[in-house]
Amino acid sequence: MRVGVVGLGIMGAPMARNLLRAGHRVVVHTRTPGPRLDAVVAAGATAVGSPGDVAAAVEAVVTVLPDSPDVERVVTGPEGVLAGGRPGLLAVDMSTIAPAVARRLAGVAAERGVTFLDAPVSGGEQGAVAGTLSIMVGGDAEGFRRAAPIFAALGTQAVHLGGPGQGQMTKLVNQVVGAVTLAAVAEGTLLARRAGLDPEAWVRAVGAGAAASWMLTEQAPRMQRRDFTPGFMVRLQQKDLRLALHAARELGVPLPATALVHELFAAVEAAGGGALGTQALLTALERLAAAGDA
Amino acid sequence: MRVGVVGLGIMGAPMARNLLRAGHRVVVHTRTPGPRLDAVVAAGATAVGSPGDVAAAVEAVVTVLPDSPDVERVVTGPEGVLAGGRPGLLAVDMSTIAPAVARRLAGVAAERGVTFLDAPVSGGEQGAVAGTLSIMVGGDAEGFRRAAPIFAALGTQAVHLGGPGQGQMTKLVNQVVGAVTLAAVAEGTLLARRAGLDPEAWVRAVGAGAAASWMLTEQAPRMQRRDFTPGFMVRLQQKDLRLALHAARELGVPLPATALVHELFAAVEAAGGGALGTQALLTALERLAAAGDA
Repeated sequence: MRVGVVGLGIMGAPMARNLLRAGHRVVVHTRTPGPRLDAVVAAGATAVGSPGDVAAAVEAVVTVLPDSPDVERVVTGPEGVLAGGRPGLLAVDMSTIAPAVARRLAGVAAERGVTFLDAPVSGGEQGAVAGTLSIMVGGDAEGFRRAAPIFAALGTQAVHLGGPGQGQMTKLVNQVVGAVTLAAVAEGTLLARRAGLDPEAWVRAVGAGAAASWMLTEQAPRMQRRDFTPGFMVRLQQKDLRLALHAARELGVPLPATALVHELFAAVEAAGGGALGTQALLTALERLAAAGDA
Repeated sequence: MRVGVVGLGIMGAPMARNLLRAGHRVVVHTRTPGPRLDAVVAAGATAVGSPGDVAAAVEAVVTVLPDSPDVERVVTGPEGVLAGGRPGLLAVDMSTIAPAVARRLAGVAAERGVTFLDAPVSGGEQGAVAGTLSIMVGGDAEGFRRAAPIFAALGTQAVHLGGPGQGQMTKLVNQVVGAVTLAAVAEGTLLARRAGLDPEAWVRAVGAGAAASWMLTEQAPRMQRRDFTPGFMVRLQQKDLRLALHAARELGVPLPATALVHELFAAVEAAGGGALGTQALLTALERLAAAGDA
């Protein structure tokens, strides 16, 4: 299949390589040429000058961009995907953006005969590199079937959640559940440390029962050895929580724990930790504890 | 081994049966005779008139009681375990109580030549019935080794976390992590429902990544079918969170998310839901949402 990739950041670049590895012909565009683009071209991709040029050359375009305005520009802009693409094109946006924007773009695309899917992912950079992403898809069922070879190259699971925007909505649910679960682990970790519990033993004991989670197994050890290198950066988490809180507000859903965690992450950002991994949430609690000591 | 069990409630009764099943000779006492006691006696246990009588007849006494004052009374009271037990007795408290009380009881017991272990469990009634509890043990290392045959009959894992009180402290960490993880799932579940996501599909999609947890897999489906029957009751969760928040305060550890969840559970209790399962946390969020609609 001829597949385009627009956006070659921390996620898009390894995804392009996995599409090449699966045997697809890959055409790419990025606003920021550099080593990531060079590596993808060296692996066999063709670079072109605009998202529209990508769309003109392929059957399906994958966009992997930071936020809603980026995707709007790349899809509907003057040199964008819809300007360059023919009717019948499949546009698969794998960025995390507002569900309302995804719904609007699906409508605009449909007017041009283009099928737009929202297909955000979880699994982070590691998942993008290993091709083990979990892909949450909203949009047309026939489009979901057509995108199957793309999803197979990028992830271990693609679930069709409903119509336009429902993939993004599921991603926001994912971010809510993940962020608050991380807070659970951060509070437990600080309590365990102040109580003098063995770092390995308490995680093993707690991880055997109803408090078990991916966050406990993966992030409590990192917190305990003060390894705050990013798998997933605090400021990207904050972007996603803003989207989630906004969508929830529109739906009349209160998310008090999510809002609290959003504030705790704001404290991490205020202390200069926006580029740290989300496990640095621990440091916000530590600062509260230190303030209490004063 | 001759083993005593004091307290034949929802946890103690099945634990006594599992000790019998493992071939131990079991002597029991309960303040509230009734069908649970009758069933345990029918299964082969001997009932006696006081905790002291239990202690006089066995090598090790297991206590499984609701709260700190109950354990203090049963261990140090006039007809209690220390009054009846000989030096060399092993006292294993498997209740969830304050770490400070466990430490104090270990000291008092040691003065009488009795080894006291704090060994709270997670896994709930199901785990007690199936013999698959996770057991978190604080106290003397030699006592931990002597208790091995008891733990083997009751659980799949017993971890020695350190000196007196550290088993209880680990249990409190477990309750903190579990309760806040449950809140993560409750907020995600309400958002998913209001967004119209398929109840099975979103749990599958979210459960494949970094937001995965035991609570998501087990409790989101119950919340979605409004099954609030207790595995673990709200009012017992509240007792444990009170103990955790108190211990954390003494250690100078702030637990803002845990405190929020404690308040949300207080709303469930205020609405008459204290005897529901903890997954009824969802109903507190629903009431906030309804208030917002007004």
